[in-house]
Amino acid sequence: MAQQVVDRRDQDFLLHEIMNVEELSKTEKFADFNKKTVDMILTEARSLAVNELLPANKTADVENGNPEGVRLENGAVKVPPSYHRPYKLLREGEWIAMTDDLEYGGQGMPRTVATACGELFSGANMAFMMYPGLTHGAGAILKEFGSDKQKKLFLKNMFTGKWGGTMCLTEPEAGSNVGALTTSAKLNDDGTYSITGNKIFISGGDSDMVENVIHPVLARIEGAPEGTKGISLFLVPKIWVNDDGSLGEPNDVIITGVEEKMGIHGSCTCSINFGGKGKCRGTLIGEVNKGMKAMFVMMNEARLGVGLQGYALGSASYVNAVNYARERIQGPNLLKAFDKGAPSVPIIQHPDVRRMLLNMKAYVDGMRALIYYISNCFDQVAIAANEDIKAKYQGLIEILTPISKSYCTDKGFEVCSTGVQVYGGYGFCSEFPQEQLLRDCKITAIYEGTNGIQAMDLLGRKLGMNNGKPMMDLLGEISARIKDAKEAGLEELAGKVEAAVGKLGEIAMHMGKTAMSEKIMDAFAEAVPFQEAAGDVIMAWLHIWRATVATKAISGAKKKDVPFYQGQIKTAQYFIEQLLPVTLGKMEAIKATTSSIMEMPEEAFVM
Amino acid sequence: MAQQVVDRRDQDFLLHEIMNVEELSKTEKFADFNKKTVDMILTEARSLAVNELLPANKTADVENGNPEGVRLENGAVKVPPSYHRPYKLLREGEWIAMTDDLEYGGQGMPRTVATACGELFSGANMAFMMYPGLTHGAGAILKEFGSDKQKKLFLKNMFTGKWGGTMCLTEPEAGSNVGALTTSAKLNDDGTYSITGNKIFISGGDSDMVENVIHPVLARIEGAPEGTKGISLFLVPKIWVNDDGSLGEPNDVIITGVEEKMGIHGSCTCSINFGGKGKCRGTLIGEVNKGMKAMFVMMNEARLGVGLQGYALGSASYVNAVNYARERIQGPNLLKAFDKGAPSVPIIQHPDVRRMLLNMKAYVDGMRALIYYISNCFDQVAIAANEDIKAKYQGLIEILTPISKSYCTDKGFEVCSTGVQVYGGYGFCSEFPQEQLLRDCKITAIYEGTNGIQAMDLLGRKLGMNNGKPMMDLLGEISARIKDAKEAGLEELAGKVEAAVGKLGEIAMHMGKTAMSEKIMDAFAEAVPFQEAAGDVIMAWLHIWRATVATKAISGAKKKDVPFYQGQIKTAQYFIEQLLPVTLGKMEAIKATTSSIMEMPEEAFVM
Repeated sequence: MAQQVVDRRDQDFLLHEIMNVEELSKTEKFADFNKKTVDMILTEARSLAVNELLPANKTADVENGNPEGVRLENGAVKVPPSYHRPYKLLREGEWIAMTDDLEYGGQGMPRTVATACGELFSGANMAFMMYPGLTHGAGAILKEFGSDKQKKLFLKNMFTGKWGGTMCLTEPEAGSNVGALTTSAKLNDDGTYSITGNKIFISGGDSDMVENVIHPVLARIEGAPEGTKGISLFLVPKIWVNDDGSLGEPNDVIITGVEEKMGIHGSCTCSINFGGKGKCRGTLIGEVNKGMKAMFVMMNEARLGVGLQGYALGSASYVNAVNYARERIQGPNLLKAFDKGAPSVPIIQHPDVRRMLLNMKAYVDGMRALIYYISNCFDQVAIAANEDIKAKYQGLIEILTPISKSYCTDKGFEVCSTGVQVYGGYGFCSEFPQEQLLRDCKITAIYEGTNGIQAMDLLGRKLGMNNGKPMMDLLGEISARIKDAKEAGLEELAGKVEAAVGKLGEIAMHMGKTAMSEKIMDAFAEAVPFQEAAGDVIMAWLHIWRATVATKAISGAKKKDVPFYQGQIKTAQYFIEQLLPVTLGKMEAIKATTSSIMEMPEEAFVM
Repeated sequence: MAQQVVDRRDQDFLLHEIMNVEELSKTEKFADFNKKTVDMILTEARSLAVNELLPANKTADVENGNPEGVRLENGAVKVPPSYHRPYKLLREGEWIAMTDDLEYGGQGMPRTVATACGELFSGANMAFMMYPGLTHGAGAILKEFGSDKQKKLFLKNMFTGKWGGTMCLTEPEAGSNVGALTTSAKLNDDGTYSITGNKIFISGGDSDMVENVIHPVLARIEGAPEGTKGISLFLVPKIWVNDDGSLGEPNDVIITGVEEKMGIHGSCTCSINFGGKGKCRGTLIGEVNKGMKAMFVMMNEARLGVGLQGYALGSASYVNAVNYARERIQGPNLLKAFDKGAPSVPIIQHPDVRRMLLNMKAYVDGMRALIYYISNCFDQVAIAANEDIKAKYQGLIEILTPISKSYCTDKGFEVCSTGVQVYGGYGFCSEFPQEQLLRDCKITAIYEGTNGIQAMDLLGRKLGMNNGKPMMDLLGEISARIKDAKEAGLEELAGKVEAAVGKLGEIAMHMGKTAMSEKIMDAFAEAVPFQEAAGDVIMAWLHIWRATVATKAISGAKKKDVPFYQGQIKTAQYFIEQLLPVTLGKMEAIKATTSSIMEMPEEAFVM
């Protein structure tokens, strides 16, 4: 069977039967994207992912300096040689800026469809996709905050992948606490700024796939206030771009090192020195001291992108595991364990292997639905008939962003770990793909704001935003699907989801109150468990939605579709019967708000 | 502060205040091991671990063929160069066979004490410890099943580390299903057997630290019954050993490859061809067709050893994380987040970082207690006054072995993952120790019987063993500590543990019944969740025990011990208030016994 990274049938189910993307094509904005076109796009994306990106994933998975991998030579990064061809094809297919305006090299595609392509690409080769992903994010900042001149000079070259882009926030002493950064900027007579400082952990900090690299750099203009309120954003090209668009002299931007890491070896993680010779020039993006606001445009996009990465690696690991479990013959069926000479069977027949696979599927399908749902919210914003609808979907995006980032990366990692387990000893061997997926996945829980930072965002900002409207809207969306499910005859399962949603509402209130009481520290110590519980309940919502659609479709379904729909119902049943009770227990614990975490004597952690 | 891999104060607490190893020294068998001696042994073990084993851990963490790592040259394995010195010191200190008879090079140490040393060694360098660990396990087979001649020729040389040992079970088509193996043995005229076959995944399959390698090899004598009942065990030395103990000619044992893996790079994982030239000789160990019985001696030891590995890596990751969180300054204290100019603080003050650390500590301390407890059961067997007591402790060992193996490896991996998270982006970088610990840890959930196999052992064999007596004894031990806790004034926490234990008893009954009903497949699909729940409840038991001892000790404690005892109580409170409710939810799910896993249409996993 052909290699896959995503279950295509499930992509189609989500796009056409759950999200009904065909509806989007009835609007002027998305008129070009009817079902036939969408299907064709997906088929092309899949072909590129499986035939080109996937093979390059393994060859590049070597330590820095290896001829097959990332090399830092004379201050310049050479990417893995196997990346050049897929990058060329990615550019030719205009896959870098799928949702953007045609004017700047985009395709104007609905985000829901672009996400389906994106999961194929990241699932096939996450490390490679870091380069165009960061490039797009940097472009998105320019699109929103850049001057006309900046847009004219840079945007199309970035969105078409001729030039690369990065995201320069982190410094050795300023990680999660961005406000502590010390990179400085000084206004020159010609209106440019001189930039001086060191940045670390810069993905795609340099690349020989592109002729220039454009760095959005956070820095502090001399005399600016302390903390995040004194940070401005600058556009710092590796090679200066003249006003006519031609390349000028090299800027004073030096790659000082490339990190050796646990995974995503093909993605170079650079340390960069700006202005070591006092000659680094940049131009301001947006307003003075409003750099964080601009950077958040990129960070929100990146957070959703990282959630997609975590999920997509889980999806790839799952598909591999199913294929392996169908082919690997080992041990007799348990029901015949005592029959002499009973034949060995594919391990998918063994109860615990099936449990592992169904567990993976439940998370993978749930996460896919979440990611498509959020993408669809963007499309709804784009076509909204009025401001209220627009605001509603924007609010849903806001509240779902930290949950999606953290949940899809934590669970993606767990799924990848189970994906190793299904392979047994082979899972640990580099000859097979599973261990790389697990290694690659770990970073997703860390970068673009650790999952702990996401939880602070959820509890400290998103939960109470607009008097809690986004949270109420989310609970409302969930309730609507529960009602549908009951009407479709899924009363029992729907009732269980309803109870869990009720409890989530309760603990959300409880958390909000506690965070504003003297127990604020205890509340924030529960922020991650709360975020996890919210994610679980959201999975239950999406599964009952899936099961409802499947239940309605099954009677008139083609024979080959029947097991697919049955599978949807069984997966929902598994999630709701086996995993949701665990979440109920977790919500009980959150409600109890332990004081033990903050009361633990600091010296007692290790004496 | 000096590098550590284990919290020494907690080791002392367990050894002297919980397990009371001093009591053992009142018996003739362990008379040499009073408190002072035990403390001295631990100090020496710690010094060897931290000063010698730990530095060699990082240097050897490179791909095969790297001059610093494992190299296969001309059919012989060279171990990482950095391993030679610690191996010499390990031998000189007689650390390989700590619990064994002096006659064979052992130290006759209580197993509880040896375990405390073992966690230091494996926590410092798990990959290195594979070599002496496997050697000891192979020796243990000979000790129990070897002929006098085999013991005389091999045992002391193995227990002193002059020669290495392995464990040759797995073949490409016979992994979890050992009974499918095809390696064959044919009796020769001189009483030896000719062995022919291929084995894979042989840890320490060759080594240049030793002058000979002794392979216990499972093989089928021609004409033997199919399956596990036709398997015999053979002693196959790399170099033939003459009757006078001198080395003879090389045996026909060829290393055909070394696996590239996710972790434990320093431990060579070999493919071995036996008898490719028809000249491989071995001698029978124990009886014909009783090979599995003999191998299980080694496998049981290995399973406990693997549980210790998983736990020990978690412990090392935890100690690192605490030290890092105390030193890493990032962001203001949350209570002062809105104070302008509030200073950045060590991240251990941030609520979510504290939660991560306390979560790690709760598992690490609980697992350490479990592992010491099982070791203490061995010591109780060794000094048992009568057969009933002996049988009780043997039963406890039997039922706790699969739980310890699976729980300590699953949770060890989770702890290592959290240990990466505490470091943020640095956790993913190879410059820091955390990512290696995570990579190394993953194999522990797989080898020596995957954790799924352990769950089948627990549900299918151990739970019903002797009419359920071991399980009843375990519940009895737990109840006794709950009674103590109530008497010490910990009624509330003890009551919660009691409720959980009651529920565990219920679901154990339920699982036992279901496994013998027509729902057998559904029961085995719950075997892993059941095993996990049992592990959780065992953690709660050990924490309430710890808290009880701490509560009693705190009033008369020296000032510097007070925070330690407080920490014990807070950790118990955290586990019981925050994690145990989740387990209650999981037990609800187990009780419901979903049919979804087995009813899931096979084709619907991926269409």
